[in-house]
Amino acid sequence: MTILKPGGIIGIIGGGQLGRMLAMAAARLGLNCCIYNDEANAPAFQVTPLQATAPYDDRIMLTGFAQLCDVITFEFENLPADQLSYLATLKPLRPGVKALALLQDRLSEKRFIESLGLRTAPFAEVSRAPDARAAFAEIGGPAILKTRRLGYDGKGQAKVVSADEAAGALAGFKGASCILEGFVDFAFEASVVAARGVDGLFAAYDPPENIHENHILRRSIVPGRLTAAQSLEAKTIAKKIAEALDYVGVLAVELFVKRDGTLLVNEIAPRVHNSGHWTIEACACSQFEQHIRAVAGWPLGDPRRHANAVMENIIGAEADAWESLAKSGALHLYGKREARLGRKMGHVTRLKPKA
Amino acid sequence: MTILKPGGIIGIIGGGQLGRMLAMAAARLGLNCCIYNDEANAPAFQVTPLQATAPYDDRIMLTGFAQLCDVITFEFENLPADQLSYLATLKPLRPGVKALALLQDRLSEKRFIESLGLRTAPFAEVSRAPDARAAFAEIGGPAILKTRRLGYDGKGQAKVVSADEAAGALAGFKGASCILEGFVDFAFEASVVAARGVDGLFAAYDPPENIHENHILRRSIVPGRLTAAQSLEAKTIAKKIAEALDYVGVLAVELFVKRDGTLLVNEIAPRVHNSGHWTIEACACSQFEQHIRAVAGWPLGDPRRHANAVMENIIGAEADAWESLAKSGALHLYGKREARLGRKMGHVTRLKPKA
Repeated sequence: MTILKPGGIIGIIGGGQLGRMLAMAAARLGLNCCIYNDEANAPAFQVTPLQATAPYDDRIMLTGFAQLCDVITFEFENLPADQLSYLATLKPLRPGVKALALLQDRLSEKRFIESLGLRTAPFAEVSRAPDARAAFAEIGGPAILKTRRLGYDGKGQAKVVSADEAAGALAGFKGASCILEGFVDFAFEASVVAARGVDGLFAAYDPPENIHENHILRRSIVPGRLTAAQSLEAKTIAKKIAEALDYVGVLAVELFVKRDGTLLVNEIAPRVHNSGHWTIEACACSQFEQHIRAVAGWPLGDPRRHANAVMENIIGAEADAWESLAKSGALHLYGKREARLGRKMGHVTRLKPKA
Repeated sequence: MTILKPGGIIGIIGGGQLGRMLAMAAARLGLNCCIYNDEANAPAFQVTPLQATAPYDDRIMLTGFAQLCDVITFEFENLPADQLSYLATLKPLRPGVKALALLQDRLSEKRFIESLGLRTAPFAEVSRAPDARAAFAEIGGPAILKTRRLGYDGKGQAKVVSADEAAGALAGFKGASCILEGFVDFAFEASVVAARGVDGLFAAYDPPENIHENHILRRSIVPGRLTAAQSLEAKTIAKKIAEALDYVGVLAVELFVKRDGTLLVNEIAPRVHNSGHWTIEACACSQFEQHIRAVAGWPLGDPRRHANAVMENIIGAEADAWESLAKSGALHLYGKREARLGRKMGHVTRLKPKA
């Protein structure tokens, strides 16, 4: 079991804001990060001198990268599975290939959730047009057709209200395998961010309520509308999932809270998560440090929250108001040069004393 | 008045742990730092790709460094005054040359403190052996002979109990100009870390009680033994000093709390300070972010404390126990390769809910 010493090097695949905040958290612990990203000017390149720019399937660069690092992790889960498997032959990959392969595919993810006895939205596999019609007949509308792979922030999703629309949406995804998911009429959304260490110990943060706009997280509120019992249930769900995957690192479980109070698992992200950014200010050990501790083989930190928090994303041109945002709370900007539409440019967290 | 935009570059003179934590705080705000240090392998070099290694009096390198940066600050106050003045002709230097020149010299610092009507230990100028004897006769023993320049962590200081010892200690400092300071029989030590922005606004953190061992800070405790009235007085002292210096940035005022409750100013550090490290976890805006905000011309952050905290330094070989330290609280390691005797290797902060 690899345990890094101070000064050890953690390889991070992906140089966006999550990689950036992971590298900053590693630096607190005296650990170094090497960032691998397929484009120059990545946000994470600004916070460490150790960096590589190359395509994600460049075996020569991946090999050199792995040789430099003591352990490898990632900030996004959609790296090709064969490259991940290759990296895992060179250095410890945390979380491991098993968890990633399973969660990269919405179909195997849903089946896995059900196999643990957890609730999820009704779903059916859809590969060809007749499947789409049959699935719609079975599940009913409204429903959401989702590509099995590579979706995020609402990309690769289409809401459908008829069998014809389901077949049409499938054609729109150009032959990508999909699932059709029953639309959940939830009261609100929530998530639980949790970690499991190499020693098998588990730690969960208090689950926030999440508000989405245009399929993008707008804000996370903790405590939100979850009851104490729902918070505990959310943590128990995360523990069950982490243990079944023999997981090492931070994961996030997105949840629907139904009007009758039941929790449905929406999806599982095998990484640090936007809905956990508030932990930077409100907890002694943030989700980023927690992930670094886990993948370094270190003991997990204390996930307890010592303040209430509201985290709000700064999207696109909203970042132009950086000066008033800096006045309003704990501001984080990700060092992105262009404020494109829908792009997450930063976030701001506002703390309040715990009631 | 220079105000940096996100993406702007702050030059930091000095690449130790303070420069490192400043650069990490700047990254949160989407600001970049370029570190200038006279030795390779500086702790701060691990957290930014922008770096320069050259002597502190290398005018060509200093010029290039200044050209790259939008504003210049420093992590230690003992840079030669003529180099500072030179840098200030090229780019805004915050805090400015006036404050630095005044505080680099213990004699002008003491006179400045007195000129504000603040209390300090009795002192006298000592340049030659007869001065030493005369000063001892005036102040009495025990007393401390201190070099006027370049002292830190007890270096350049000698405790003396007779006029002969005072003269001998002066000879030991090889002709350096000194002051003799009356020994203060204090109840405990404290400090106040505060900031002033380019807009003249002022913000102070709650003052911790500080415990020193072998002239090195061992721990800072907040709240410590200061009464509410003493805390307020400490903040008022810092405000008076910051305003008199037309200061921009974070400064720390070290205080003696006497048994009768009066506060004496021991010294003023024109920079972030070891006794303010607890603000990283216990406040939404740490002393490092506060300094970055000030020197960038941004609005100051909220200095309120949302938890009680004890910060403990990790000195020399104590860092070998990193694994149990990581279990015990929020661990910070500075990335130093060698654990030399008396060297600050990191610190750990432990939070408790506010009573």
